[in-house]
Amino acid sequence: MIPESNRYIALSGGVGGAKLVLGLSKLLSPEQLTVIANTGDDFEHLGLSICPDIDTVLYTLANWNNKTLGWGQEGETWNFLEALKRLEGESWFNLGDRDMATHITRTEKLKAGQSLSEVIAFLCDRMGIKHPVVPMTDERVRTIVQTRDAGPLAFQHYFVRDRCEPAVDGFEFSGIGDAKPSPGFSEALDNDLTAILVCPSNPFVSVDPILGIPGVVDRIREKMIPVVVVSNIVGGMAIKGPAAKMMTELGMPKTAVGVAHHYIEKYGDLFTGFILDETDAYLAPEVEALGLSTIVAPSVMVTLHDKTELAARVLDFASELKSSL
Amino acid sequence: MIPESNRYIALSGGVGGAKLVLGLSKLLSPEQLTVIANTGDDFEHLGLSICPDIDTVLYTLANWNNKTLGWGQEGETWNFLEALKRLEGESWFNLGDRDMATHITRTEKLKAGQSLSEVIAFLCDRMGIKHPVVPMTDERVRTIVQTRDAGPLAFQHYFVRDRCEPAVDGFEFSGIGDAKPSPGFSEALDNDLTAILVCPSNPFVSVDPILGIPGVVDRIREKMIPVVVVSNIVGGMAIKGPAAKMMTELGMPKTAVGVAHHYIEKYGDLFTGFILDETDAYLAPEVEALGLSTIVAPSVMVTLHDKTELAARVLDFASELKSSL
Repeated sequence: MIPESNRYIALSGGVGGAKLVLGLSKLLSPEQLTVIANTGDDFEHLGLSICPDIDTVLYTLANWNNKTLGWGQEGETWNFLEALKRLEGESWFNLGDRDMATHITRTEKLKAGQSLSEVIAFLCDRMGIKHPVVPMTDERVRTIVQTRDAGPLAFQHYFVRDRCEPAVDGFEFSGIGDAKPSPGFSEALDNDLTAILVCPSNPFVSVDPILGIPGVVDRIREKMIPVVVVSNIVGGMAIKGPAAKMMTELGMPKTAVGVAHHYIEKYGDLFTGFILDETDAYLAPEVEALGLSTIVAPSVMVTLHDKTELAARVLDFASELKSSL
Repeated sequence: MIPESNRYIALSGGVGGAKLVLGLSKLLSPEQLTVIANTGDDFEHLGLSICPDIDTVLYTLANWNNKTLGWGQEGETWNFLEALKRLEGESWFNLGDRDMATHITRTEKLKAGQSLSEVIAFLCDRMGIKHPVVPMTDERVRTIVQTRDAGPLAFQHYFVRDRCEPAVDGFEFSGIGDAKPSPGFSEALDNDLTAILVCPSNPFVSVDPILGIPGVVDRIREKMIPVVVVSNIVGGMAIKGPAAKMMTELGMPKTAVGVAHHYIEKYGDLFTGFILDETDAYLAPEVEALGLSTIVAPSVMVTLHDKTELAARVLDFASELKSSL
């Protein structure tokens, strides 16, 4: 049982992170969990403000997510996109007909002067989502992927348009120097937190932007609480997305150890706990050697049961680490 | 046979006008016909620039129009709108999924600084439409419906949201004082024209805005050519739309004679020819008495054959009037 007074922040990117967030939402009350979503992969396209990671988390928590595709909305159709192709419009980004309602609503409210936080709170309300899902910042931060042959690419151009094909050299988060944590993120950081939970999301383009907002790492560090990360790499592969390919291109071991090493190298002793999938149990000593307490737990989440089970393991592990501080 | 040197301007609103325009397009080359579409019912909605009359003409000429509904695109679906309703967005205006591609494309190009004429020329090109379809103006003109109990209403609020229920007192075309004919309209008016053809569209909200653009009536008058109108009222009813209801509310006879009277009263001897449906043959003497040459022709257009037949009658009538000038 999780004591009622325990409070957590979960940091999430898109699909992988949203799965653990869903599990956590089944075990924690809305008062106990604040979800911080990456906005580095947000972009403006066809005049619309699009927030892929936030929307994935929202659709997942609202149970509107498309279980067949693994992204987008359930019952999604593609007639807008088909018609756009017929008009020879920019159709490389898959905008579903239902999804368009989210983008149109968000774009209109942002243009009317609302903050992204206000818009997302509105969407949460309309989707019946009780747990606060909060953008990492209300300022504009945009992930730029540095590529060897194609130069700097806006994230969605790299990710969707160019299908992650260009070899990656590094990343830049344009605008991050002027970004502040969103009000919801900042308030959550003011709480008496039990732990920060880092979902199995891409370290480079989902987690680093959140932790890169000026002041965030220091504020976490001051709290002296466990920061627990679930490896997004299992058996040398990313469950979803280009993380493993990126690691190879960056000259890093394409394993959970590579992930752990990245976090340690970048954030020093901020991270305290690491969760490996059973497939990678043999890597535990290597991760421990980097200074991270490590447990092994099934972390490939397919069913809702998988998600709540992993969430329970993450919470137990965090409690354990917290009490041993 | 229509001589190759004959050139025409057709003035059109939405569905009814588009039917005759389609018929005309089967008989005239793109050099012979310029279609001027009303933009008074254009509006901005959910951040999108929407041009209902232009789009109806385009979809009709491209053969993309929905034959079942009688408006919108063939194969249209409504998942965007359904999703918007779920988000409790403004869903009173029927925006189809395919239709959204047109609005998104137009909105983006207008925001990028293109004129409405440029955008519509682009859409015509993409839709394979050879006959020039031209907005009446590139400036912003907006029809305001003066209502007895609900005050002034933006046209689409009156027409779609309030289902034409409020009783009408009059009309205002906001912005028309500063509007100029679009370049395509102006060039067409410079041509050696055979006739101006006024499609069976609503006189108050489709034709009057076009003729209300400063200078247009004078330029037509100077040309000393026939202006031929097809009655939009047949058997005391508008084939489509609120024209008949409006006429009753404005205290006018709800007949083709009322239509003829409106044009004569407003534009004096600008109008020369009037086409009545067979149902209304008995009204011919009354229309003639107003000073309009009148013929009777089947003007309820259901099949493509109906449309080309009526177009042929209109063109013959115009030639006859022209040669008798």
